[in-house]
Parts: sequence; structure tokens; C-alpha cells
Amino acid sequence: MPQSDTTTTPSFDDLLLRLLHIVGQQGLLTESGDMTAYALEHRGNYPGKALAVVRPGSTEEVSQVVRACAQSGARLIPQGGNTGLVGGSTPDESGLEIVLSLTRMNRIREVNPQDNTMTVEAGCILQNVQEAAAEKNRMFPLTLGSEGTATIGGNLSTNAGGDQVIRYGNTREQALGLEVVLADGRIWNGLSSLRKDNTGYDLKHLFIGGEGTLGIITAATIKLYPVPRQQATAWIAIRNPAEAVSLLSLLRENLGDRITAFEIMARETVNLVLMHFPAMREPLQEAAPWVILAEVSETSLRVPLQEEFETVLAQAMEEDMVLDVALAASEQQSKSMWDIRSHIPEAQRKDGPSIKHDISVPISRIAEFVAAAGPAMNAIIPGIRCITFGHVGDGNLHFNQSKPASISKEDFLAREAAIHEVVHEAAARVNGSISAEHGIGRQKQDILIRYKDPVAISLMYSIKHAFDPNNTLNPGRLLPARNTQSHSDKVE
Amino acid sequence: MPQSDTTTTPSFDDLLLRLLHIVGQQGLLTESGDMTAYALEHRGNYPGKALAVVRPGSTEEVSQVVRACAQSGARLIPQGGNTGLVGGSTPDESGLEIVLSLTRMNRIREVNPQDNTMTVEAGCILQNVQEAAAEKNRMFPLTLGSEGTATIGGNLSTNAGGDQVIRYGNTREQALGLEVVLADGRIWNGLSSLRKDNTGYDLKHLFIGGEGTLGIITAATIKLYPVPRQQATAWIAIRNPAEAVSLLSLLRENLGDRITAFEIMARETVNLVLMHFPAMREPLQEAAPWVILAEVSETSLRVPLQEEFETVLAQAMEEDMVLDVALAASEQQSKSMWDIRSHIPEAQRKDGPSIKHDISVPISRIAEFVAAAGPAMNAIIPGIRCITFGHVGDGNLHFNQSKPASISKEDFLAREAAIHEVVHEAAARVNGSISAEHGIGRQKQDILIRYKDPVAISLMYSIKHAFDPNNTLNPGRLLPARNTQSHSDKVE
Repeated sequence: MPQSDTTTTPSFDDLLLRLLHIVGQQGLLTESGDMTAYALEHRGNYPGKALAVVRPGSTEEVSQVVRACAQSGARLIPQGGNTGLVGGSTPDESGLEIVLSLTRMNRIREVNPQDNTMTVEAGCILQNVQEAAAEKNRMFPLTLGSEGTATIGGNLSTNAGGDQVIRYGNTREQALGLEVVLADGRIWNGLSSLRKDNTGYDLKHLFIGGEGTLGIITAATIKLYPVPRQQATAWIAIRNPAEAVSLLSLLRENLGDRITAFEIMARETVNLVLMHFPAMREPLQEAAPWVILAEVSETSLRVPLQEEFETVLAQAMEEDMVLDVALAASEQQSKSMWDIRSHIPEAQRKDGPSIKHDISVPISRIAEFVAAAGPAMNAIIPGIRCITFGHVGDGNLHFNQSKPASISKEDFLAREAAIHEVVHEAAARVNGSISAEHGIGRQKQDILIRYKDPVAISLMYSIKHAFDPNNTLNPGRLLPARNTQSHSDKVE
Repeated sequence: MPQSDTTTTPSFDDLLLRLLHIVGQQGLLTESGDMTAYALEHRGNYPGKALAVVRPGSTEEVSQVVRACAQSGARLIPQGGNTGLVGGSTPDESGLEIVLSLTRMNRIREVNPQDNTMTVEAGCILQNVQEAAAEKNRMFPLTLGSEGTATIGGNLSTNAGGDQVIRYGNTREQALGLEVVLADGRIWNGLSSLRKDNTGYDLKHLFIGGEGTLGIITAATIKLYPVPRQQATAWIAIRNPAEAVSLLSLLRENLGDRITAFEIMARETVNLVLMHFPAMREPLQEAAPWVILAEVSETSLRVPLQEEFETVLAQAMEEDMVLDVALAASEQQSKSMWDIRSHIPEAQRKDGPSIKHDISVPISRIAEFVAAAGPAMNAIIPGIRCITFGHVGDGNLHFNQSKPASISKEDFLAREAAIHEVVHEAAARVNGSISAEHGIGRQKQDILIRYKDPVAISLMYSIKHAFDPNNTLNPGRLLPARNTQSHSDKVE
């Protein structure tokens, strides 16, 4: 992917002046203090330093910014709410990368209840999108921990998952059309509220989950759904992950797509939360080896949802498929159940160092994966605690490891690579994925190359080359830099 | 997309010998009588002549066939059940194109009820796929008129739509993973039953709806669903398409995703069927200007679906949103309602010449489209009959025109281009699509170029060039041939 050598590369001072001209004073940050929030990943895993942060206010401005940067040979790092977990949206330490923040593009362009669509700019915060839908008596189903900060553009670029995937699919499934600025500054207007449109390759799917490497999503038309008017929540004690899969089958056959969440937690995981948040109470007395948190939803007010749910769960108990069930009798009880689930990451933070994973496996092989990977962890670090939890309905496990008291932080982290290796091998062995919902970014490039079909990797490079031959957009993210003259060699 | 000029192109006799060696006697047809069924589109719209029909029996054979053809500079036309409507799967009249029929690859490799997936080879007939799912108490939701002949590979390659898109989405939404033979013969093993996998660009979406121009789908892992155990059907009389949209909103808010079909028919359309099939009876006495055929489905046996449906429809009547409702009281009554809908194409055939369209528009603008396009038809051919019907929930209208008695067939068809022009213009004016579910093939290339965003067209050519630089796969289909030395110039 050679740079065009026929044009002279102007100095970055010229570029910054040009950017200032495009976006104005309010749209350009160059003081390092101002740039910190954009340059650093929020968990502090990726130290970074930006040449500048440019914050365009319109698609036209994004287009001009990209064109200017492309012409100067500068590298652009697109960024939404900067809540990503794999280092895909922050600059490296060279001080030569420019962050393109979409956060000023935060207009909700249209909410259309008849079409069940809304058109939003990339910088809209997810929670604001949810609220704008709710105002028109519609629901946007994407929901995740960072929804108060994450932007819809970031959600789309990383194909974010979250809690309701089992029912509504990933962010990809929510997109009907996109507006994208390409690597040469051209604007592709692919906004559309059509449910059916077979006019050629479906381009939007390249940008969704493309982590900003093929183009910059500036706006999207997304799907809305009827608002569920009833919900029921249950805390279900089971013996092992295999029971979770059988229970899910039973629920599905009876309740169909009413199941909107089906989360699993290992005993260790529940205990970790209860230890660090002693005010919380587990709904069931007996400490089962595994727990399911299930939620069902229903649009009609006339269907007796709670009774329906209870009947199927009673059947599961009768068939000895589960140990015990607590059905939330109030919204407060439901919230208490969810609190345990949602406080897992914070409990892990409080608890000390942990080694995290975001794998997925075929649902039918979850039990096999856990049975293989669990003991293997203990073989590497005796006494290690597997903080296993995740979205069983999607086969997505956050198979995280917490440090045992018996070992120092340094010794624990020294084995991080070995732990990762075993977990990813175990996932690969059951045809799983090494990144279910967080993406690749800078963190997972080695294992992407190692585990992904080489033909797929080769096709991905072809696409990157076709869409961004000069490697302007998020270079070296998702796909490792390859056969490319280093940018920093050129500009210094 | 120049052919490589450094290699000599072997004669096609050599190629045929090589193909014979790969697929054996049973896999190669070269007698013109044997080839007719593969060379001709079933409605007779695209006269064609094949050099040969090659029918590989395995992915490995497909790979070798493609490699051999690519090396010889031969053009391959991938074909499933040959039920497409736009000339995308049959050879042209040159006698130089080779049909690659996937019909011998018809194994169902796996049905996995726990994962709710099945893995099928491209040549499996859709109906067999549905039946294999049903045997394991699961449902594959794709259903369309030609399901007894169409193959799942063809459905995927054209992203087929059908009757239940409102609830389950197009074929695209049913695919979890693909196995694809690329233009150079490499095999991409992208089969996967994962619900979440964020490891790079989602390549499968390029091949789905790619009409065989980027690669040849040889197998797919597709989604299964719980079997609905109750259904209810209603025939609903309305005044105009706007009422259909309001009714759909009301139904959705109350019944959510239970709505599995929501079809509209104009009075002219119903009358046409009743005229040609006099044994059929319309469920309601009064001949309303428009009719909706709606179906709702439910997995639970305990929910009183029929009553639920009735209650919401009663509310619609009370609010004067609809004129009248007939709720099917038996499966037989439901079937009678569906018979009217499903006999529209045959009634049109019996009636004589017609000019057909497959457009989609935003749901909220269906009424606007019909109000604009209807009178415009009559201005071109006075007395013309708009046989309007379609899937309202998807905004997909088959806005077909039937010849009035007052004009000869020749005069009618002489105005076909003018009719198309007005319909496509009217669709474009409301941000619609000129091909909702049938694709582009050879039929709609001019209007693709005319109505599609030029940036999108340019990206599509980049992708075609990156995936199939020598234009081996379905050349000149979907995207018009461009900047390409004509193959026929070379080989003759």
C-alpha cells in the first residue's frame, strides 16, 4: 500500500492550519491538556499522544478533514465515546496521529414511528438515542454498560453487542443505512429506511464492525421496535452450563422470542459481587454452582406474561432441569437481580488484578469449553478464580480470571500470556471466536492472524487496500500493518 | 480489469477435458439438449446458450472447476434452481459461457437444535431445508413461491425475500456463516454457528446478495427458530394504503413480533384472481378498495392468540381505521384467504401481457407512491389496470400493470420502457429502491447505474476488481461490464 510519491507531503503545520480553517477554533484541539481525554483509553491500557484532536460539526467538515489529512499523508484515528476496550480508538505514542472525534455530530435527524426508524448522527450518545425513540413510543434495543458515554457511531463501527442480543441481534442488525466518509474524502450517502433493497453489494456491512479502518460512519438510519409493556425476571439456580442450554431450549420452544436476556454467572462470580457489595442479597438461599438471570418481555398487556414464565419454569423444575427458581415479584426485585449482574465488572476492579476474555462459542459447546478451560486455568495458577459470566443465548462468555491471594500481582500478570493462550486455544477448539463483541483494535491483532482463516485475512487486506490504499484511516488497527512503508518514516 | 496477458489462453477443448477429469461424466453436460434447462430462464425472457454445464459434487470440485476456468479465461455462470427473475443465472447467447450448477451439492451437513442452526450445501432445495428443520422441531422461516425448486445457495446469492420478511428478515438475516469458492479457486471456510464474532470485516455479507459475482457460495450455516404452534389469519377491508400503515402500527404496538405476514392487495388485484379462478370466494361480501391479508403467529399454546388478534382488530374497527374484518375460523378458511394472494402471479399469466415491477419504498410513503404512480400509469395507457400487491410491512410493492382490452399487445409492450421509467422515478422520488427482492442480474443494470449513488457504484466496482480481477464469475451480471477487454474478443 504505497503512498503516492508524485505529490510532496506538506508539513503538518500546514495541515493544522488547513484543519483550523475547516472546523474553526472550537473544532481543533492541539494543547496536550485538552487532548488527554481523547488520547487515552479509559482503563489506561494504551498510553497515547495525539498530534491534534479535530472535532468536525458536519459530514461536509468530516469530508474536508479526511481529504486534507489524506493529502498530507496524516493518519486519522476515528473516535466516538472512547469506551472501546481494545485500543482501537486512541492514538499511539508517536504524537503523529490525529484523533477525529465525532462527538460534535450529535443531532438526531429524524425519528419516524411509522417506518420504525430513526436517523442519527454518529456522535449521538447511545442513551440519547434510546430516549429519543422512547419519546415516540418506540424502543431502540441496544443496551450496554457504557451507554451513557458510548456513541452510536462507535457502536456501529465495533458492532457492539450488549444484553439484548439474544432477542434483537448485535448493532449490525439494527442498521438499515449509513452515511460514510471514505478514505479519500468522498461521501457515500447510503442512508435508507428500506427493509428490502437488493441493488448490489450491501456495502454498509463492511463499515459496520470495520473499526473505522474502511471509512468513517457519520450517520445511520437504525431500526426501532415496539416498546415491551411487560417484563418478568427470574433468578434460576442450576448445576452446570449444560443445564443452561437445555433450559434455554425449553424456554424458546414455549416462549419464542419473548426471551430478551439469558445471562449466566458462575458461583465464584456471584460470590465476588456479594463480597464487594455486601448490601446486595442473592434471591435464593442456597448457593447453587451456577446461576441464570433470565428476562422475558411482551408487548401485549393482555398476555399473562408472569404466569406464562412461571409455568415453563415450573416445568423445568419438575423435569429436574434446574435446582430452584426465584421469580421477581416486583420491579424492585428485578432490579436487585440485575444489580448483581451489572456489578460484576466493578467487583472485579475492586478485587484487584484480573485477566479478561471476550470469547464466544457455539451454544451447544459452552459446557465443553468451560469443562476444558476451567481446570486448565488452575493448572497454570493454582487457586485462580474463574469469574465466568456472559450471554449464554449468544454463546458469549466473559471468561475472566481473578488473582488468588496466594500469588503476587507481578507473578499473576506474568502468566497473562499463558492464560490467554489456553483460553483462546480452548475457544478455537470448539469453533469459537477470540473476540465476540469487543473487536480487535490493537489488542488482538496477533491472535486474529493466528486464529482467523488465512483466506479471510487475505480478503480483508484486499478490501482495506481497495478502500484505503494509503492507509489513512485507523492504520494498524484491526489488521496489522503489512507491506506498508511506515508513515512515521515518511513524515519525520 | 484486464486479463493477465502473460499466460497463453488454452483452447476451450482442453478446458472441457480438464473439467471432465474433475467432475467425471455425470458432472459435465455438453449436448445442447441436455443443457437447455440450465441455459434458459424459465419465463423465456433470456435466450441463452452454454458452452457446457458443469455440475461439481463437492466444494473441492467447485474449487478445481473455478481454478481451471480462471486459468483458461473462461466465464462461469453460477446457478442454483434457476428460478431467478432478472437473468442473473443463465448464460448469454455467445455459447462461450459455462454454467456452474450447484444442484448436485445438496447435502444437509448438520441440523443442530441446541444451537438453532443447520449447515446445508448450496444446492439444497429450499423446501428440503424447511423440512429438515421441521424434523428436528425447528423452523427455517424463508418461504417463497418457488421454494420447491429454488436452492438455498441461490436464495443467499440473491438475498431472497418472500412472505415472512416482516418478522424474520431477508435471507441475509438467516445466515451465520458461509463456505465460498473464490474467483481464483481458493476456498474460504467461513462456516460458523456463532451469534457473535467481531473478528474483522464481516465478509459473508458481500457474497450474500452478490449474485455470484464475487465468489460461489457452496455451503452455509443458517439460523433456525422455534416452531410457531398457533397462527391466526385475517382478511381486512380498508379504504387506502395509508390505512394499511396505521393498522400495521396498531398491530405492532399490541402484538409485537407476532405479525408474520402483512400483505396488501388492490381491488383490481383481487378481482383479477377471482375472474380467473371463479371457484375462489372472497371472505367479505363488500368489495373494498384495498385488502390486507394479515397473519400472526405464536409459539406458546397457552396464549389465546385468536382472541388477542380479534381484540386488536375490533379496536381498529371501532377507531374507523378499517372497513371490515373476516377472521379465519379454521385452517381451511385461512388457506382460502392465502389462495387468493398466492394465485396473483398465475392470474396475471392467464390474463395476458403485463409489465412488472419489484420496488420498495419507505413504509410511511407507500400511500404517496401509489397516489403518484397510479394515475401516471393511466396517463400513459388509458384503462391500464394496476395489479398492485405486496408486502406492506417491508414497503415492498409488486406494482404490476396489466394490459387493458382497448389496446393491442404490441402497443402495450411498446410502452413498457415508459411505464418502467415512471414507476422507477416515482419510487426514487420517495427514496425507494428499483429492486426490492429480485436483484439486478442482466435486467436492471441500466437503472442500477441510473438510480444508485455513484459513490456506491464506484465502491462496488472496487470490490469486484479486488475479488475477481479477471472477471471470471458471472461477468456482466449485477455490475455492467466496464473497462474490460471483452472476453469474446479474446477467445475467438
